[in-house]
Amino acid sequence: MPEPTSSIPLLLFGAPVTNPNIVYATRFLAPDPVVAIDYGDHVSLWVSPLEAHRAELESTASAVHSTEEISVNSLLGSAGSETELWPLLVHAVLAAEGCTNVRVDSTFPLGIADILRDKGIHVTVDWTAYLRERRIKTQEEIELLREVERIGLGGLEAALALLRTATVKDGLLYHEGAPLSGADLVHAVESYYLAHDCITVDSICCGSPECADPHRNTSPVIRANLPIVLDLYPYHRTSRYWADLTRTVVVGEPPDAVWKMWNAVKQAQQEALDMVHPGVNARDIHRHCCEVFRDHGYGSLSHPFNEISSSARFIHGTGHGVGLEIHEFPRVSDPDVILEVGDVITIEPGLYDPDLGGIRIEDLVTVTEDGMENLTPFPKELILTPQ
Amino acid sequence: MPEPTSSIPLLLFGAPVTNPNIVYATRFLAPDPVVAIDYGDHVSLWVSPLEAHRAELESTASAVHSTEEISVNSLLGSAGSETELWPLLVHAVLAAEGCTNVRVDSTFPLGIADILRDKGIHVTVDWTAYLRERRIKTQEEIELLREVERIGLGGLEAALALLRTATVKDGLLYHEGAPLSGADLVHAVESYYLAHDCITVDSICCGSPECADPHRNTSPVIRANLPIVLDLYPYHRTSRYWADLTRTVVVGEPPDAVWKMWNAVKQAQQEALDMVHPGVNARDIHRHCCEVFRDHGYGSLSHPFNEISSSARFIHGTGHGVGLEIHEFPRVSDPDVILEVGDVITIEPGLYDPDLGGIRIEDLVTVTEDGMENLTPFPKELILTPQ
Repeated sequence: MPEPTSSIPLLLFGAPVTNPNIVYATRFLAPDPVVAIDYGDHVSLWVSPLEAHRAELESTASAVHSTEEISVNSLLGSAGSETELWPLLVHAVLAAEGCTNVRVDSTFPLGIADILRDKGIHVTVDWTAYLRERRIKTQEEIELLREVERIGLGGLEAALALLRTATVKDGLLYHEGAPLSGADLVHAVESYYLAHDCITVDSICCGSPECADPHRNTSPVIRANLPIVLDLYPYHRTSRYWADLTRTVVVGEPPDAVWKMWNAVKQAQQEALDMVHPGVNARDIHRHCCEVFRDHGYGSLSHPFNEISSSARFIHGTGHGVGLEIHEFPRVSDPDVILEVGDVITIEPGLYDPDLGGIRIEDLVTVTEDGMENLTPFPKELILTPQ
Repeated sequence: MPEPTSSIPLLLFGAPVTNPNIVYATRFLAPDPVVAIDYGDHVSLWVSPLEAHRAELESTASAVHSTEEISVNSLLGSAGSETELWPLLVHAVLAAEGCTNVRVDSTFPLGIADILRDKGIHVTVDWTAYLRERRIKTQEEIELLREVERIGLGGLEAALALLRTATVKDGLLYHEGAPLSGADLVHAVESYYLAHDCITVDSICCGSPECADPHRNTSPVIRANLPIVLDLYPYHRTSRYWADLTRTVVVGEPPDAVWKMWNAVKQAQQEALDMVHPGVNARDIHRHCCEVFRDHGYGSLSHPFNEISSSARFIHGTGHGVGLEIHEFPRVSDPDVILEVGDVITIEPGLYDPDLGGIRIEDLVTVTEDGMENLTPFPKELILTPQ
């Protein structure tokens, strides 16, 4: 349960499946909006009648209420349309809870806030709501993240196994007589997730040159001798904790320019991993990656490395927190943030050449007293070898 | 492309993967926040540098800008933390676009709105932003929804095939020597999705009595002679259009009380389907279902049917719109809304008895000039028969 951060109750509104703060506060999953109020020492959860019994069973909230308790039907007459029912419902919940002064997180819907304020409720944005609680993972959360990362690695093995069966014809990979596609690799990866209680919103299994766009999901064909980026991010179906990992491989013999990119990325990633330690500024880790790339002749987005002109560039941050969101606080990038024990972050520098594709290596690590523990025990080799 | 609804630009902010309005406006998918401005006749999309090339290729926006164009690094010094960078970024985008007066949808983040207002930007909530455009489906959208529903039916067939292989021992279903679980059925369903370019956030494959909670996903075992609810809702991986369907089956011989619930639900669902026609109030369809249930001795949530005391009750609405969200406008429930040609809605009355489980039958239909077209061509039979 979250620790009290303020004596002013925290009002949460949204569909839990897309609102990680509500999942954190209640551990309840539902596709439709719920209202939760965190008083610091207890959480009150309001759900529709159809969810009430399940919320009693599945949520960690101290009290579960059905909106049947407040007369929703009588509110309908006052609402201009069904969408405008939500602010009236939230207002009725606040009345039932006796709250006239609430904090909300920064993502709270403006439409509801404006109407609550018009009705005399004092609504202030708390930019740090659950920020620290969600950032510093408990041992139990770290074990969940480790398990999801392990399943991500199972997905990676499935993709690599498929790549190992491929034959090369006219520079393209073939499987069972047809050209192998990124979607075929995604199917292998996500089938593994399904068998292990994980799902995802998507996967990146992308050949070159398409993987020069870091978030291109798939390519229609997979070319030999050029990079194949496998960036996998499953989440656990019921706990909703994510994992994240990337390996880049080549089937065949890459040109020298790809080896040069690979060597720079591998060095930057290893040196960044070596820097992870409590008390270190995440920005310094990112800037070190930029410096490694500069020393290899490559530019980055961050100033002054953006002034370096090169065919391949480092066009994203070095990493990000992972938890109930795939990308969460803290970023390992330009912002100024000191790493702490319990942070779980990715370290994933990359280089992208529009003609040759991309190279990215990503591990998930947790910051420990002694430095870090790598939750991604998997080799980093550019050339895919038969196992 | 959305039609102009106002001369005031519509500002959109959020991660497309969780913001259907941004997907509608730009057809761009990304895991991190983007900023889009819809001027009515053109849409301007601002993305991080790592997404810029992909957004050029994949989005329908008239103009794609990288946030590299506005100096994000210089904003970092002004932001209290990385999370507070977002309002500064949105403000810089508005400055670059020359906007000082914007509409936003009701879900726009309050944290950003408060800061924009403090900086002199006029921000008003448009409760109807894209409501009509997204509600009335084009023929192309209907074809997408039909295809996703067809894939949902493939998933249903996979679950039913697994149930047909089951043997019964001591009242439980067994498969290959082990008790069959709801999770086994979900695996069969979602494996079918994966092979057909669909994914989902979850599936409901739940035996009794657990399925008396309408949104309970799975049960640890599946009992013979009692209802098994299969409520499936895949979405298409790239277009992000959802489908929704439910069938309830029994393996074995259900008690009379289950047959009684089944007959009431089947009648209510068929009569509700027969009522779907342009010009009909969705509320009347819902209330008709309540009346059918009343005539069979069952209570509902809606007044005055909530005064009927019965062991099984109808504890949700009759249906909802389906599109870029699984639950979207309009609801077929207590709100007052006239159906129109192009609406795509579910019709899914159900009855839930805490001791016996639940019965729900759900079809996805589109409202046509002549009434409706059912997008869910699948038999409705309580007893699972060998095929």
